[in-house]
Amino acid sequence: MAFFDELLKEFPVKKKLVYLNNASVSPLPVRVFNAMKKFYLERIVSGDLAWEEWIEKVEETRKLAAKLIDSKPEEIAFIKNTTEGINIVANGLNWKRGDKVITSDLEFTSNFYPWIKLRSKGVRVTVVSHKPNGEISLDEIERRIDNYTKIVALSHVQYGNGFRVNLRRLREITQGKCYLFLDAIQSLGAVKVYSDLCDFLSAGSYKWLLAPFGTGILYVNKEVELNPSYIGWASVEDPFSLSPELKLAKSARKFEIGNQDYSAIYGLNEALKFILTLDPVKIERRILDLTDILVTEAEESGLTLQTPKERYKRAGIVNIKVKNPEKIVEWLKKKGVIISARMNGLRISPHFYNDENELYKLITLLRKIILT
Amino acid sequence: MAFFDELLKEFPVKKKLVYLNNASVSPLPVRVFNAMKKFYLERIVSGDLAWEEWIEKVEETRKLAAKLIDSKPEEIAFIKNTTEGINIVANGLNWKRGDKVITSDLEFTSNFYPWIKLRSKGVRVTVVSHKPNGEISLDEIERRIDNYTKIVALSHVQYGNGFRVNLRRLREITQGKCYLFLDAIQSLGAVKVYSDLCDFLSAGSYKWLLAPFGTGILYVNKEVELNPSYIGWASVEDPFSLSPELKLAKSARKFEIGNQDYSAIYGLNEALKFILTLDPVKIERRILDLTDILVTEAEESGLTLQTPKERYKRAGIVNIKVKNPEKIVEWLKKKGVIISARMNGLRISPHFYNDENELYKLITLLRKIILT
Repeated sequence: MAFFDELLKEFPVKKKLVYLNNASVSPLPVRVFNAMKKFYLERIVSGDLAWEEWIEKVEETRKLAAKLIDSKPEEIAFIKNTTEGINIVANGLNWKRGDKVITSDLEFTSNFYPWIKLRSKGVRVTVVSHKPNGEISLDEIERRIDNYTKIVALSHVQYGNGFRVNLRRLREITQGKCYLFLDAIQSLGAVKVYSDLCDFLSAGSYKWLLAPFGTGILYVNKEVELNPSYIGWASVEDPFSLSPELKLAKSARKFEIGNQDYSAIYGLNEALKFILTLDPVKIERRILDLTDILVTEAEESGLTLQTPKERYKRAGIVNIKVKNPEKIVEWLKKKGVIISARMNGLRISPHFYNDENELYKLITLLRKIILT
Repeated sequence: MAFFDELLKEFPVKKKLVYLNNASVSPLPVRVFNAMKKFYLERIVSGDLAWEEWIEKVEETRKLAAKLIDSKPEEIAFIKNTTEGINIVANGLNWKRGDKVITSDLEFTSNFYPWIKLRSKGVRVTVVSHKPNGEISLDEIERRIDNYTKIVALSHVQYGNGFRVNLRRLREITQGKCYLFLDAIQSLGAVKVYSDLCDFLSAGSYKWLLAPFGTGILYVNKEVELNPSYIGWASVEDPFSLSPELKLAKSARKFEIGNQDYSAIYGLNEALKFILTLDPVKIERRILDLTDILVTEAEESGLTLQTPKERYKRAGIVNIKVKNPEKIVEWLKKKGVIISARMNGLRISPHFYNDENELYKLITLLRKIILT
């Protein structure tokens, strides 16, 4: 009961809505807003007087981000959104004509356009199609990897159908052969992510990380050579020397070009502390328990799942195929239940603060509108 | 008196500090924070339910930004900071070996590194030195422009000594010969900026625009071909179609790759309305009146100016050369007067909300510490 009261305090959204749309944008926990408010109120009354504290907060947040994915702080750069991180990687590798990128037909456009844009440099892009059950076959990816393959670029969890790739096996397949880039926007914060299972990872903060827009996390394995395309005062070894000599920082900080969105950093800092305190492994278990219910109930009701049924093949997203998903989403919204329409289906995405009663309310409504 | 009360309401910083450091970071007007708070409170209680309003706010803000510089909304892209805009331009032009960039020795490193990085593509960078009075000679720039010159990249107002370039003459010199890029971080919001006097312009929001970190304005003349280096879901004609076919937007929106920092957009929107209501031309006059006082008093006190004396050769920055500027800045801070140390001098940067009494307080203290 105490835990539930605590949840209501951080997530007042629960008082009025059944919000199962965290794969779009999560509600902002009250404590995250309060951390940002502290930054703003200081700027209102004293301009930049606290700027040394802002810089310290950036470095503290870098450590928290590193802790979240078991990496080193020097492997973390803050980015404005997932897409920026993808572009930093796509533009930062040393491409030769004939090099190959392998990706899938389930990717969000931001993890597709930057790769096909490389075609102008003679890079080939192989798009692996998903299987009827919603999976991307790792056997197929393994078959497609050849001496020309420079990188496999996949989402850890697919935005549409919620398929979660087997990262350990994907790492085995790619290790020593090509780089592995993970779009982690639908996994980081929802499931425990281990950075040593990939070379690069990019994720914005405003979904599963429960943090503001305006910042995100780029992980770059320090053993890998990646060159920044964009640089600025903040990318160099000593940003405050203002030296005309261009000496790039040796860490992932070289990908940070100018001023951070400090208020967003304050928010992300608080959100990361929140998640680390709750424990990412426990959050994952909780979310999988909730999606288990959705899968079981959907199957028992005879609804068509677009998400693989196995617990380890998903994270926080369950997709149910329906006719006219937009209409159903609108109808549910009027009843105070918030989900999204994606891939000709209903995308339902509970976070740890959601509960069984909320899921049953949704399922009852779905049975009513779809099956009767 | 009513106007002064109004100022105190928006700038409570005035109650405790003499804040003359707007060239670093301005204090945040209370109304700007309130606009952002509205966004956050909505996200707290309803996640992304207001997202259509967020998108509308972006487009409304684009119109306000266009109005500020007399451009068209389709020539405006929002960027995370000034440096991002500079990199978009430096990486987006079609370079040939031997092409030339002309810049100056007064530029902030962010308007220098992205240009010298082009040397790896065989691009030559000409750095024009400033004159003893702090000016950059436009005659010298004119002499240096040749058939190889692709772009002149200058700050509208220099961050260190506050020199403001004669934009009309610079435009005459460059027109029909090469592009003109303006780093406008120290001018936009302080002086009236006319976009038709340049081809590209980049400026973050947190200084003279009185807005949050996390967003900024990139102007790209619609007659000029500039190709995006980074792309994403938001760069295409119809971002919500999620089509795998890459059709870039025809407007400057193609430089916006993913989600905006919507809270920062809400803040910038309010700040732009504030500035447009007060009138950028009147703000410029007010700021020049204040810097006039600084220049006159400094000269009469026998202090050494690093800023050109002529009113039309500066904006909101006056720099006084001293020994140990850092020590004086620290001493003044203890007295509640905030300025910065730059270029071996004291950088004083009043905005319109500052007043004569604040300047006289600073000058009295300066006379005491420097001249006695």
